[in-house]
Amino acid sequence: MLEDSHTARTELSELGEFGLINRLTSDVGTIHPSTIKGIGDDAAVLENGDLLTLVSTDLLIEGIHFDMAFTPLKHLGYKAAVVNFSDIYAMNGSPRQLFVGISVSNRFSAEALDELYAGIKLACKHYHVDLAGGDTTASPHGLFLALTVTGTVDKSKVVYRNTAQPGNLVCVTGDLGAAYTGLLMLEREKQVFLANPDMQPDLEGHDYIIGRQLKPEARGDVIRKLEEAGILPTAMIDISDGLASEILHICHDSNTGCRLYEEKIPIDPMTVATAEEFNISPVTAALNGGEDYELLFTISMNDYEKIRQLTDVSVIGHITAADEGCNLVTGDNVLVEITAQGFDHMNRGAIKG
Amino acid sequence: MLEDSHTARTELSELGEFGLINRLTSDVGTIHPSTIKGIGDDAAVLENGDLLTLVSTDLLIEGIHFDMAFTPLKHLGYKAAVVNFSDIYAMNGSPRQLFVGISVSNRFSAEALDELYAGIKLACKHYHVDLAGGDTTASPHGLFLALTVTGTVDKSKVVYRNTAQPGNLVCVTGDLGAAYTGLLMLEREKQVFLANPDMQPDLEGHDYIIGRQLKPEARGDVIRKLEEAGILPTAMIDISDGLASEILHICHDSNTGCRLYEEKIPIDPMTVATAEEFNISPVTAALNGGEDYELLFTISMNDYEKIRQLTDVSVIGHITAADEGCNLVTGDNVLVEITAQGFDHMNRGAIKG
Repeated sequence: MLEDSHTARTELSELGEFGLINRLTSDVGTIHPSTIKGIGDDAAVLENGDLLTLVSTDLLIEGIHFDMAFTPLKHLGYKAAVVNFSDIYAMNGSPRQLFVGISVSNRFSAEALDELYAGIKLACKHYHVDLAGGDTTASPHGLFLALTVTGTVDKSKVVYRNTAQPGNLVCVTGDLGAAYTGLLMLEREKQVFLANPDMQPDLEGHDYIIGRQLKPEARGDVIRKLEEAGILPTAMIDISDGLASEILHICHDSNTGCRLYEEKIPIDPMTVATAEEFNISPVTAALNGGEDYELLFTISMNDYEKIRQLTDVSVIGHITAADEGCNLVTGDNVLVEITAQGFDHMNRGAIKG
Repeated sequence: MLEDSHTARTELSELGEFGLINRLTSDVGTIHPSTIKGIGDDAAVLENGDLLTLVSTDLLIEGIHFDMAFTPLKHLGYKAAVVNFSDIYAMNGSPRQLFVGISVSNRFSAEALDELYAGIKLACKHYHVDLAGGDTTASPHGLFLALTVTGTVDKSKVVYRNTAQPGNLVCVTGDLGAAYTGLLMLEREKQVFLANPDMQPDLEGHDYIIGRQLKPEARGDVIRKLEEAGILPTAMIDISDGLASEILHICHDSNTGCRLYEEKIPIDPMTVATAEEFNISPVTAALNGGEDYELLFTISMNDYEKIRQLTDVSVIGHITAADEGCNLVTGDNVLVEITAQGFDHMNRGAIKG
């Protein structure tokens, strides 16, 4: 009976995800020496002898983060786990233990949850992570997943997002925008199916982008390659909300600017073709699409020769002083300010750009 | 499109919470030496040098675990945090860091979330825990909370639930059944209010049991008192689902039986009076009511003189060999088998006994 007894009412949509988190947590400090880093990076960092323990937590909500109409439960379980592992890699760590909270309505059968768990267990097997606990409960509506992962990293090797330096090179793994164009395909085929249930989905030839949406992988392989090459990134974040949003996190938190080059942004030909089919710019898909789970990191200029040897890593720009701003140099050599128009789950995943 | 493509369909309600968890996780092993204890206790136990790290996770779902009609948001935040801390105390540990996942519909304003967070922060302050991370996202329906807490315990002092021994004394802190009778009161007043919104809730004189439902405390104080008294429990669990369910967990996991004495079970006079008002046995409320968040633990018979000195701890029976079963000796000296009729959140909190 005390709900909303206030006179003021601020809509959550006015604040957006990051505005809300900032509002709720700006006064939060820490008291335990073991809390080395609390809120504000891909994972919390806890003291653990010679090692650090990393903890990251993620929610995946039916109707917000996934659509049961085109998401097989096994894929959903796999993706939910991988998304969490990605946060640990983004600290330069290794995921170790996974905790799974599941809330389901009675619309789901035990066999459906078997499938979901099969995906989670498969991801744990692939990434060498122990499924170590969780909670399962009823839900009045739909499916909610809450995952927490712990990981470990050497004290001398943890990489934060607020430590980029002017002159650093900006690097990205894999290619961007594919997961978003995959989602566009799936949503279009869902509409076709809803209009005429006899129609079969026409996803042929789009395996790569569909796979990027439904079954992403986390880039633990790149973390190992960087280690072998003797490259320690100066700052790192994983790309869950789109390149634009993530580079702004790095620059804002590091108090720097950046200059990225449109033509250097790695985009798969299928992503380009599909984006054009949907009348959006492929670069917009890469900048604002989200859910690629690639790594965005900065390195010292001295590591340039080493990074050139690595496959699957692209140098897309450099870090500047803060007063130069965050800019993209377009193909026709125009400087455009990078703004956050990312995949904002507070606003139901709408691309607002 | 692949949801429920199986021919078999097992309803979740057929399995219950523990049946479902067992079905989903019975084949889960661990590979990392750092995973000392995975699924199956109040918290997972991870290697951390001389110390152990504890990790526990809990979901709280609107319409299942709480009813917004009579749950102030600040209380809800406080309770959500405390319930998690209780799991760490139940391992004989100290909570250290809290991670909060919140999924809300646009029915909630930012001011409402401020209240919820105020409760979470207050609990963190009272229990000396750092709020160290989380995730905030939209929900199509209602409010979902997913909390994860990490804690720490000396290697030589961690207490599991599967290590009770025949001859051990069974102890419980505080008193039982109050939270459940508080819930009965709140639900009755809600019905009165729904029938006639002009009626004011008649909760006067029931502060204690209402408080036990809306703002429970975790028994870190008892953990400290046991330490000071030089008592290391042989097994321990917190009472979230009712005494019956929890003692059966200890006995089943320890491969023992038990004998509890009805007249020894601590029940507050207001709980007795309220239970009788609702025509239920106060002992039923204590055995099956749940949400008391007291600690249930076993100790060596040698510690009997020490435990007698402690206020707020009751010895309610003893552990026996497994073949003697799990029994309650009633006030008229009849032996009754203890069965799990606890507060099963898979079945929407219904008391089935």
